[in-house]
Amino acid sequence: MRAGPTQEEVRRHNLGTLLRYVHVHGATSRAELTNRLGLNRSTIGALTAELISVGLVSEAAPRETGRAGRPSLVVRPESGRVYAYALSIEVDRLRAARVGLGGRILEQYETERPPGMSADDAVQPLARFVRQMRAGVPDDARCVGSGLAVAGMVRRADGVVRLAPTIGWVEEPVGEALLTELGESGRLTLGNHADVCALAEHSRGAAVDCDNVIYLYGDVGVGAGIVAGGHRVTGHGGYSGEVGHMVVNPYGRPCSCGSRGCWETEIGEHALLRVAGRADRTGKDAVLEVVDAAMRGDSQAQHALRQVGDWLGFGVGNLVNIFNPEVVIFGGTLRDVYLGAAAQIRSRLNAVGLPACREHVRLRTPELGADAALIGAAELAFEHLLDDPLLS
Amino acid sequence: MRAGPTQEEVRRHNLGTLLRYVHVHGATSRAELTNRLGLNRSTIGALTAELISVGLVSEAAPRETGRAGRPSLVVRPESGRVYAYALSIEVDRLRAARVGLGGRILEQYETERPPGMSADDAVQPLARFVRQMRAGVPDDARCVGSGLAVAGMVRRADGVVRLAPTIGWVEEPVGEALLTELGESGRLTLGNHADVCALAEHSRGAAVDCDNVIYLYGDVGVGAGIVAGGHRVTGHGGYSGEVGHMVVNPYGRPCSCGSRGCWETEIGEHALLRVAGRADRTGKDAVLEVVDAAMRGDSQAQHALRQVGDWLGFGVGNLVNIFNPEVVIFGGTLRDVYLGAAAQIRSRLNAVGLPACREHVRLRTPELGADAALIGAAELAFEHLLDDPLLS
Repeated sequence: MRAGPTQEEVRRHNLGTLLRYVHVHGATSRAELTNRLGLNRSTIGALTAELISVGLVSEAAPRETGRAGRPSLVVRPESGRVYAYALSIEVDRLRAARVGLGGRILEQYETERPPGMSADDAVQPLARFVRQMRAGVPDDARCVGSGLAVAGMVRRADGVVRLAPTIGWVEEPVGEALLTELGESGRLTLGNHADVCALAEHSRGAAVDCDNVIYLYGDVGVGAGIVAGGHRVTGHGGYSGEVGHMVVNPYGRPCSCGSRGCWETEIGEHALLRVAGRADRTGKDAVLEVVDAAMRGDSQAQHALRQVGDWLGFGVGNLVNIFNPEVVIFGGTLRDVYLGAAAQIRSRLNAVGLPACREHVRLRTPELGADAALIGAAELAFEHLLDDPLLS
Repeated sequence: MRAGPTQEEVRRHNLGTLLRYVHVHGATSRAELTNRLGLNRSTIGALTAELISVGLVSEAAPRETGRAGRPSLVVRPESGRVYAYALSIEVDRLRAARVGLGGRILEQYETERPPGMSADDAVQPLARFVRQMRAGVPDDARCVGSGLAVAGMVRRADGVVRLAPTIGWVEEPVGEALLTELGESGRLTLGNHADVCALAEHSRGAAVDCDNVIYLYGDVGVGAGIVAGGHRVTGHGGYSGEVGHMVVNPYGRPCSCGSRGCWETEIGEHALLRVAGRADRTGKDAVLEVVDAAMRGDSQAQHALRQVGDWLGFGVGNLVNIFNPEVVIFGGTLRDVYLGAAAQIRSRLNAVGLPACREHVRLRTPELGADAALIGAAELAFEHLLDDPLLS
């Protein structure tokens, strides 16, 4: 329980609110800001001036509006001058980007992550990407920090990857290793891959204006980023959303976690490829080939999609009963499974989900694709700035 | 996205914060309020004076402290003068209470709810209880509204009980019926039984100071009230927490909801009594008899407790992976199952729950017992007042 803010705190809060607005919505006229933020014109003017003075936004006349009267000035985030480094460690890829305020990817790099690659070895190319980007940054640009998304369970406090079964890491101090490699003590915030994708899709993708969101991400494993009542569900230690280890089939197959019949044993890519008779294959392309084969009439591929789609709808039904969300987003390989088995998924969801819990739920594919992890990782870095734009 | 508050809004927020503090923590010295709320002494004095002037708190010298110096005045909520009516419709009971600010139950009534009792018939005794209490209320006391907890899915907007399978109601306008019966247009807020119990245990019971809480309530059905990151998880329409309809056993028994193998078919009281060979019995007493029989060495009762405990731990493991909570509370008949099968539950939870998700989770019984529903229902009514104490 906390007392209300002082006037100075209110002013800083308002600065953050204005900056966050243009960060999320892009260039916005002063008139619209006045409307949206419920502040008067002179306050908006003063806040904008202050944000301009610290180099976070710029202001310009709008293009010809065709309407009479003096046009309202347009405020836009300084995407080219204020940026964060965004990094992502995924099962089969390593990605890095420089992301400007406003969520614009300014440049990006990626490489494969071969199976079995150690944490130390994965840190090298990421650090190299950052050094490359650093060399080309304009002199007057300002870095606000870095965000790193990892396809695993991350202890945010100290940047240790607790457990990343699909990557094969346990208790790896990835954050520390990366900072050491970069030779700096900069601000680095870690997050779980599905969590940051949810963050990105919630702020500027398929779940804009939704307060209750489940973002599912699948590859070998399955995880979720969850928003409830407009707030991110993170859990006590930051380990929530491990929906891939919700047991759905107590008589099912052993899972890498040591349990049996976890959801990811039924809907992860191994399950799809196994049922499709392609257990020797792996990866996103192999999943896409199954969907393509099913479209072309391959009955075993169709059977695999139906079976996996059925289990996918089953687990979504459970989550819908628990969260009563407005939208469920299918990311990673689950996107392709969803596109190939939407009717099956909806049918099982309708059987498992209670009518009241599922009546308004929309099923969606991501709008940001593979960029979601980078945009979301950058959001982790921008968060400090948006909370208090005057903090350096 | 909203701009920061005006000075007047800050003052009202601070009034609410102070009132909420003494509402939750009881009598508190001005010195402690200064500490806890981070406001200076003169501000605390002014806020207290304003709350006294509208009759919400009183102030008095503390009892002898034994310490030198002028003792700090003690601020306490006006529990006798400011109250809410709290009502609860449960599977087998109807309860009503008058609850004073500060969460003190001033008086309460209850009666049985026979199986099959209609919504209209259930409203009668509740309205009668309220009329009885009303007759004895002191002239200078002030009612801030009423809260009604229902063991079912409630549409908060219009007070309609959407679905209460264990009670047998579908689309019943209970809120409207109750207000009509009481002949008044007072403020009535409805909530789900498990949700309001969670609210009560979170604010003044077994989950005080915990930001991530799962409160499970079981009788014939099973539901949950969930707090994540300090916020109540309610879902888009207010229907979240239907964990009893998380399917845990796809090859299990048909459920009243039309699905199969829902968690409540494995851990609800019917399951326990069936496995214990007592399918002809029903209700809390019958569950207690099974636990007692198991303690005395009855092998069939022991077997039933082990089996139900196993499924209970199984589902809790799923929820722990999804929410990473600090505490799970077992209410209703699940309290007795927990007490009779704690080892079994913990063992299965450890097998299903990922180490990081479960490492800090404590398993607890409720501290407020059957009062939780009434205290929680009253909280629904007090919420308006605590948000803005000057609103009448």
